[in-house]
Amino acid sequence: MSTGWFRRRFLPGGPLPTPRPPGPHASPVPYRRPRFLRGSGLGPGAADASRRPRARPVHSPARGLTLPWNAGYAEIINAEKSEFNEDQAACGKLCIRRREFGVEEDQEWLTLYPEEFLTGHYWALFDGHGGPAAAILAANTLHSCLRRQLEAVVEAVVAAQPPMHLSGRCVCPSDPQFVEEKGIRAEDVVIGALESAFQECDEVIGRELEASGQAGGCTALVAVSLQGKLYVANAGDSRAILVRREEVRPLSTEFTPQTERQRIQQLAFVYPELLAGEFTRLEFPRRLKGDDLGQKVLFRDHHMSGWSYKYVEKSDLKYPLIHGQGRQARLLGTLSVSRGLGDHQLRVVDTNIHLKPFLLTIPQLGFTCR
Amino acid sequence: MSTGWFRRRFLPGGPLPTPRPPGPHASPVPYRRPRFLRGSGLGPGAADASRRPRARPVHSPARGLTLPWNAGYAEIINAEKSEFNEDQAACGKLCIRRREFGVEEDQEWLTLYPEEFLTGHYWALFDGHGGPAAAILAANTLHSCLRRQLEAVVEAVVAAQPPMHLSGRCVCPSDPQFVEEKGIRAEDVVIGALESAFQECDEVIGRELEASGQAGGCTALVAVSLQGKLYVANAGDSRAILVRREEVRPLSTEFTPQTERQRIQQLAFVYPELLAGEFTRLEFPRRLKGDDLGQKVLFRDHHMSGWSYKYVEKSDLKYPLIHGQGRQARLLGTLSVSRGLGDHQLRVVDTNIHLKPFLLTIPQLGFTCR
Repeated sequence: MSTGWFRRRFLPGGPLPTPRPPGPHASPVPYRRPRFLRGSGLGPGAADASRRPRARPVHSPARGLTLPWNAGYAEIINAEKSEFNEDQAACGKLCIRRREFGVEEDQEWLTLYPEEFLTGHYWALFDGHGGPAAAILAANTLHSCLRRQLEAVVEAVVAAQPPMHLSGRCVCPSDPQFVEEKGIRAEDVVIGALESAFQECDEVIGRELEASGQAGGCTALVAVSLQGKLYVANAGDSRAILVRREEVRPLSTEFTPQTERQRIQQLAFVYPELLAGEFTRLEFPRRLKGDDLGQKVLFRDHHMSGWSYKYVEKSDLKYPLIHGQGRQARLLGTLSVSRGLGDHQLRVVDTNIHLKPFLLTIPQLGFTCR
Repeated sequence: MSTGWFRRRFLPGGPLPTPRPPGPHASPVPYRRPRFLRGSGLGPGAADASRRPRARPVHSPARGLTLPWNAGYAEIINAEKSEFNEDQAACGKLCIRRREFGVEEDQEWLTLYPEEFLTGHYWALFDGHGGPAAAILAANTLHSCLRRQLEAVVEAVVAAQPPMHLSGRCVCPSDPQFVEEKGIRAEDVVIGALESAFQECDEVIGRELEASGQAGGCTALVAVSLQGKLYVANAGDSRAILVRREEVRPLSTEFTPQTERQRIQQLAFVYPELLAGEFTRLEFPRRLKGDDLGQKVLFRDHHMSGWSYKYVEKSDLKYPLIHGQGRQARLLGTLSVSRGLGDHQLRVVDTNIHLKPFLLTIPQLGFTCR
């Protein structure tokens, strides 16, 4: 993700070190902030402030302008690490239309009712890396994916119990009993729709970025309020907390190379070719060096939650699959998160080693009653 | 695991339907109960009672004989499902000897001190299936594996902080700092030893059963009291609870095909050849049939915690990888647990499909301060 690309894409009038014409498939999605922050009394020049290098402005709504549902939003370019803002947020009302199957056996038709059938509210936060492209696409796409996925199963979402067959017909008289025994609730269908939406959005981002020759990825943290429940879907290292009068409750956990160590090491164990002989999947307290050869040192492999000792061999001196500690921990020396959207083309610098296989698009999901 | 084998192995004088001489590699481990139950006033014939079919005795120590550490033990053959008792238990004192490295650089020698260095207590429960062979081997072997694994790292177990190098030498002056940053404690080394012990014991069981032409598997639940901590390692569906005056606290969670659905489906997704085209890895509310073809039904795949709908194809009509609900849930139509020891040769009846790849030997581990 080059700064040059960002300038070409979003700053057509800016100073270009090596100007090139935009690609034939440039993404149609513009850089923008959420609607509720636009025209918030910051003055006509303010909208462009975040595009200027080193400006790092923090935007917040003008005094007296209430955010929807008391949502907060800050747009920050972090500590000069990035020249441009890579993060995005989105919020809005989810308007889910109804579709209905024919009731008679030979009627396989389907009607999409144009009017709203079910409404919910949607908030999302996308922490971008390698440029803002993926975060911008996610902020413009994920809610549409979710709406589409929910519309596909809306009859099950509003049912007292999701039917085994979406058509509502019982092939076997005890189908409702099977569904009940499995403990399948309407909430599980919403969770399934959120999982599918993340996957669909990741595919859209992959196609769009490839078509426009762009790169980058982002985390995704989504909260959806639907039918009296608050759903939180998290893929990345952002955090959702619920603040009530006397309680601050975490609604998500973070996914980093450290918290997902065993999953990542397990994948490298199953597919060692993903490391191309350049990395070791084993974890040691620090990167090993020649002097450690033949010594018995602390290590952990994919199946271990505890630590053990092993004699150091030459292959253990390779760069570790997960290296560093805390906020410095990196996957393949490159990424500090282990779940998210995008990064389809991301490779370890100067190698052909892809990071995407180690990244999960799948969010962790939970819901709470409002 | 045939009843005939059990008779040949443990009942040399019993009625044999098809008597055969014992194999050349018959296991040296006899059927036995824990030492504290022997000679407990049940009379001379009592020791053999559990070997008699349909006797299903429940043994408990004689009145007035206190169990070590108030441990309880019952030996039950469950509800006539098995003709012979397949479960075993073990308890004892762990006597861990010390070994010491030479302190000078050219002294690579190692001394094993014969006297005890560290002592702990060990309790274990093995719920056998497919015959008692694996449970008997586990009850006779696992504590030795654990002792050996702990002796190999005992210097780190008793240290205030485990050294990066087991020899205690610092290759890099900040090695202790690296260990501290990773948060590695002596408890993590005990946990690592328990994990290694389970693996070692599983290998021993595999070798012994193959050499003696036997079969079977067992769950393993182990509690170890060491240096003021109570460690619980669980591979299977047994349960450890800590009962205090006003509190009953679970110390383990169960591993069944249901609780490990995503791990098991994920493995079948990565290695579809493990199912040999006979099973479907997808979960449905019930086994599908011809009438469901083309319908949109509820399903879950490996990456989903929620439920979604899919059009039923012909391949979805296969027998499900995990079938049934609650206590009736079976892995590959065969096993009701997903972790444990043994089962190296276990296959789906009338097929060449092995269960072992889906079974984890790795226990879940936790510790609590006494």
